[in-house]
Amino acid sequence: MEPVLFYGIPHGCSFGSIVALEWLGQPYRLSRVDMLAKEAGYAHINPTMQTPALMLEDGSVLTESLAILHHIAARDLSRGIGFAQGTRAFDELNAMLSYLHTSVHGAFGMVWNSFKQPEGSPEAAMLRMLGRDSTAQVLANLEAHLADRAWLVGVQATIADAYFAAIVRWAEDLQLFDLPREYPAVDRLLRKLEADPAMVFAHAIEDETPAQSAGGFRGHVTLDTLLPRLAA
Amino acid sequence: MEPVLFYGIPHGCSFGSIVALEWLGQPYRLSRVDMLAKEAGYAHINPTMQTPALMLEDGSVLTESLAILHHIAARDLSRGIGFAQGTRAFDELNAMLSYLHTSVHGAFGMVWNSFKQPEGSPEAAMLRMLGRDSTAQVLANLEAHLADRAWLVGVQATIADAYFAAIVRWAEDLQLFDLPREYPAVDRLLRKLEADPAMVFAHAIEDETPAQSAGGFRGHVTLDTLLPRLAA
Ligand SMILES: N[C@@H](CCC(=O)N[C@@H](CS)C(=O)NCC(=O)O)C(=O)O
Ligand SMILES: N[C@@H](CCC(=O)N[C@@H](CS)C(=O)NCC(=O)O)C(=O)O
Repeated sequence: MEPVLFYGIPHGCSFGSIVALEWLGQPYRLSRVDMLAKEAGYAHINPTMQTPALMLEDGSVLTESLAILHHIAARDLSRGIGFAQGTRAFDELNAMLSYLHTSVHGAFGMVWNSFKQPEGSPEAAMLRMLGRDSTAQVLANLEAHLADRAWLVGVQATIADAYFAAIVRWAEDLQLFDLPREYPAVDRLLRKLEADPAMVFAHAIEDETPAQSAGGFRGHVTLDTLLPRLAA
Repeated sequence: MEPVLFYGIPHGCSFGSIVALEWLGQPYRLSRVDMLAKEAGYAHINPTMQTPALMLEDGSVLTESLAILHHIAARDLSRGIGFAQGTRAFDELNAMLSYLHTSVHGAFGMVWNSFKQPEGSPEAAMLRMLGRDSTAQVLANLEAHLADRAWLVGVQATIADAYFAAIVRWAEDLQLFDLPREYPAVDRLLRKLEADPAMVFAHAIEDETPAQSAGGFRGHVTLDTLLPRLAA
């Protein structure tokens, strides 16, 4: 079978991997994971219970967005969504991907965490405040980085931009900032990406509205169908 | 000049990059950054004020441990501390590096953050508690992963092990757990790494005790000497 991406809803960071798969243009399938349901069977796919995860042709599973995104890009470097190891561009892409995965995801993560605390508790308020401060700082860093750049790395959209879109949209979900006013360059990149057919497709997949693949989407598969294919 | 690694003290995650440079065996220099002093000039090297950062031969700067570690490994893949893009081993290494940089670093980071809150405050207590819970969870995942493995990825020490050593030692710094009793496989890997000459060297560098390089260490350089070499 084609590679299958397990993506989490609602509004997970897996969104970036869906976009990257569309950009790659090769056949793939999707498997939907409701992150709030905590389906026990998913532990066989990823013991940490996190999404995304990518099941490869041989039934082995790759976890972690960063590893999945690199894997997708390396399947066809001529698409320009990733770069060859040993080049300056590869290093820059890695630095940006790492910053997004650690500092940026971590900042928003603190705010998300606040919802796991009792509503109205001092713990919830404090996590939201700490998370908001960290988020403001990482957005300011991204804003400065984007001041003289059309894309995060290099001269076209890469896997870094796909992942950026997946997590920076949380600023709006969490009603933390008025992006267009406070972080105009960040907002500009997000809007530009939102207009991309791969992004439009990924939103439709998440929202379960009619989705038009511009890439190689071959349909959904259930977890139950996939478990027997899992490599030992 | 040789590549120069800016490493943070005390006990920063840069430690992993020092170990990787030693394992690479090629000439390099070090520049010491006191993270508590928040030296203003360092913002020219890394606007986020974080360590590590690697200044390359042409005066450009690479940030983020994950990107630096990959860069070091790619300088000589025959050392076996990293792998070629497009291979299964490269993907597995990436997944492990990413897990360590996001979930594991993030869990300890919460506990470190507690020290930035007023001593004895409910905020400090809460961050320590949340961080301790997350740390217990990531250590349990690493323990399970290491049950049937001698190293984190593949059959010898890689950049993932170097980074692991840099951050998992925090469990002891922060007096969170009794590693040998609670996480014996994690403890075993840490002890094995501690005996490696590159690790012994990196500890001596941090502690400013006589340090014996088994690699290509060519001495320290100050930030002031390096700022004029910075690429535009
Ligand atoms: N470091 C992981 C983090 C993945 C992650 O945080 N996924 C979230 C959705 S955005 C998740 O699965 N959360 C559920 C959980 O952690 O239990 C990666 O980059 O893939
Ligand atoms: N994502 C970064 C994180 C680096 C990081 O957290 N560095 C710490 C030392 S372990 C630091 O510089 N802390 C000071 C600060 O954040 O201001 C990386 O992996 O390099």
